[in-house]
Amino acid sequence: MKIAVLGFGSVGKGLAGIINEKDLGIIITAVADSKSGVIDNDGLDISKIFEKKEKTGLCGDKEITPEKILESADYDVLVEVTLSKGKNVVTSNKGPIALEYRNLLKIADENRCTLRFEATVCGAIPIIHALQYGLAGNKIKKIYGVFNGTCNYILTRMSDERLTYQQALLEARELGYAEADPTYDIKGIDAAIKLVILANAILGFNKTLDDVDITGIDNIPSDALQLASEDDKTIRLIGEINPETETLRVSPRILSKNHTLVVQGTLNAVTAETDLAGNVTFIGKGAGSVETASAIISDLLFIRECHGGRY
Amino acid sequence: MKIAVLGFGSVGKGLAGIINEKDLGIIITAVADSKSGVIDNDGLDISKIFEKKEKTGLCGDKEITPEKILESADYDVLVEVTLSKGKNVVTSNKGPIALEYRNLLKIADENRCTLRFEATVCGAIPIIHALQYGLAGNKIKKIYGVFNGTCNYILTRMSDERLTYQQALLEARELGYAEADPTYDIKGIDAAIKLVILANAILGFNKTLDDVDITGIDNIPSDALQLASEDDKTIRLIGEINPETETLRVSPRILSKNHTLVVQGTLNAVTAETDLAGNVTFIGKGAGSVETASAIISDLLFIRECHGGRY
Repeated sequence: MKIAVLGFGSVGKGLAGIINEKDLGIIITAVADSKSGVIDNDGLDISKIFEKKEKTGLCGDKEITPEKILESADYDVLVEVTLSKGKNVVTSNKGPIALEYRNLLKIADENRCTLRFEATVCGAIPIIHALQYGLAGNKIKKIYGVFNGTCNYILTRMSDERLTYQQALLEARELGYAEADPTYDIKGIDAAIKLVILANAILGFNKTLDDVDITGIDNIPSDALQLASEDDKTIRLIGEINPETETLRVSPRILSKNHTLVVQGTLNAVTAETDLAGNVTFIGKGAGSVETASAIISDLLFIRECHGGRY
Repeated sequence: MKIAVLGFGSVGKGLAGIINEKDLGIIITAVADSKSGVIDNDGLDISKIFEKKEKTGLCGDKEITPEKILESADYDVLVEVTLSKGKNVVTSNKGPIALEYRNLLKIADENRCTLRFEATVCGAIPIIHALQYGLAGNKIKKIYGVFNGTCNYILTRMSDERLTYQQALLEARELGYAEADPTYDIKGIDAAIKLVILANAILGFNKTLDDVDITGIDNIPSDALQLASEDDKTIRLIGEINPETETLRVSPRILSKNHTLVVQGTLNAVTAETDLAGNVTFIGKGAGSVETASAIISDLLFIRECHGGRY
């Protein structure tokens, strides 16, 4: 299987490194970062590209644009971005999947291509796969859980160590769990985007971010967590999709400390309530470049499987 | 997609009932119980068969044997039993998969057929699927968890309600969670068989039940659980596969009460320790006819997907 990788930041580099180390039968024929690209249809020497990127900040030559790669590289699956070339696509990019799932799927179907996006929701947890295939035939009655590791880390620390929100946020930043501008995470937007992806891609709705009722964690007083704690409860930011009422909601909720969804630190946890399988819960790491690469690789190998091992 | 169902006990009936109720695009063309069978290549009237089974104890005619069904029914996937006809097979039967996985896979491959067995391990949890596809590309460093709901129920009750082993077993029997002869469950054999299936089918080993180091739960004194409880710990029957040492083990272990694998009642919980995705945990119902049917249906729909929606 030959793949072209557009994007050579932490995820792209992580992916290339792992594919280089592991004997998965996957060859990378093209790579591009925002300013350069490189193509070798016999398979790139990834270590050399890492070296070059390290030294010059570029992975290849400025003349090799993503367009050039789409045009002249030999690949079976494109990792990231556009579907226009009639090739299979694996993406970790939440935006296009959340905003344009129906259109992307239509283009993919018209081109008889496969579009996979496991990495867009809950990192290393194979939630998309489990819902699409592992629980196929089930009616999904509800999906709810912890979709954002940054918020979960902050709430865990506020609850366990009695930190204030500001202290916990500062700590999360120092550890690299929160970005300099944490708005996206702490306001619940990241979790909401993941709900939109699941609602559209798994449940067939046509929702946008505006359809999600969102409350973040930035206004939770430390007192609230301490009061909850005295009662053996805690607070978590829970995203929930209710297909019956067609509602999507992200909000802090009080949960018993031994509730399945009360996971520690940056973990994610999602429960699918189904008619046949009952409640099935998935717990794992929701972020990180290696975890994202894991999801991308599983998508690549799944596409190979689906196409009869042709690549 | 046309299917033939061999076996019309609780799982077979549950499956037929669900397929009859749900609009999954699956038609049942043949059904057999141990003494009779029925074929209609245009699709059976399942409600009529239920009625007949209820009244006469037979689902069809005595002349229609399983052999006859294999010979003359029109089907894409056989649910249960033998692979000899060059058809795809979905089974919930642990024995053949645990004992003969390599041979069965070889026959399936030679006939270009698909063999799926999601229902053999942890009922409604799509663990086989998640390990084969959702976490594809990962090196599995360890698999461990609660594989037997009966033992988990007994241990939960001993821990929470301070019942003796005998009291908890009696209760489990009354509730239908334990069979009249509970040996298979409480001696750890059922859990061990599931480990053998995962070791052979997911990790490529060639293990048998004799390779599993097994300790059951029948010799755990109530004191042990009460002592553990005072220390905020409890005991669970844990099955573990360590691919590095090639060891399989089922044994009672002391776990912190807030350990992810400490699930309540008849639930199952399994953690896969991987190189890329980290630890991923799956929690759900491990048994029950509807849950088993859920696993079988997901396998059927997956075969349809893999064969390009041809059925």
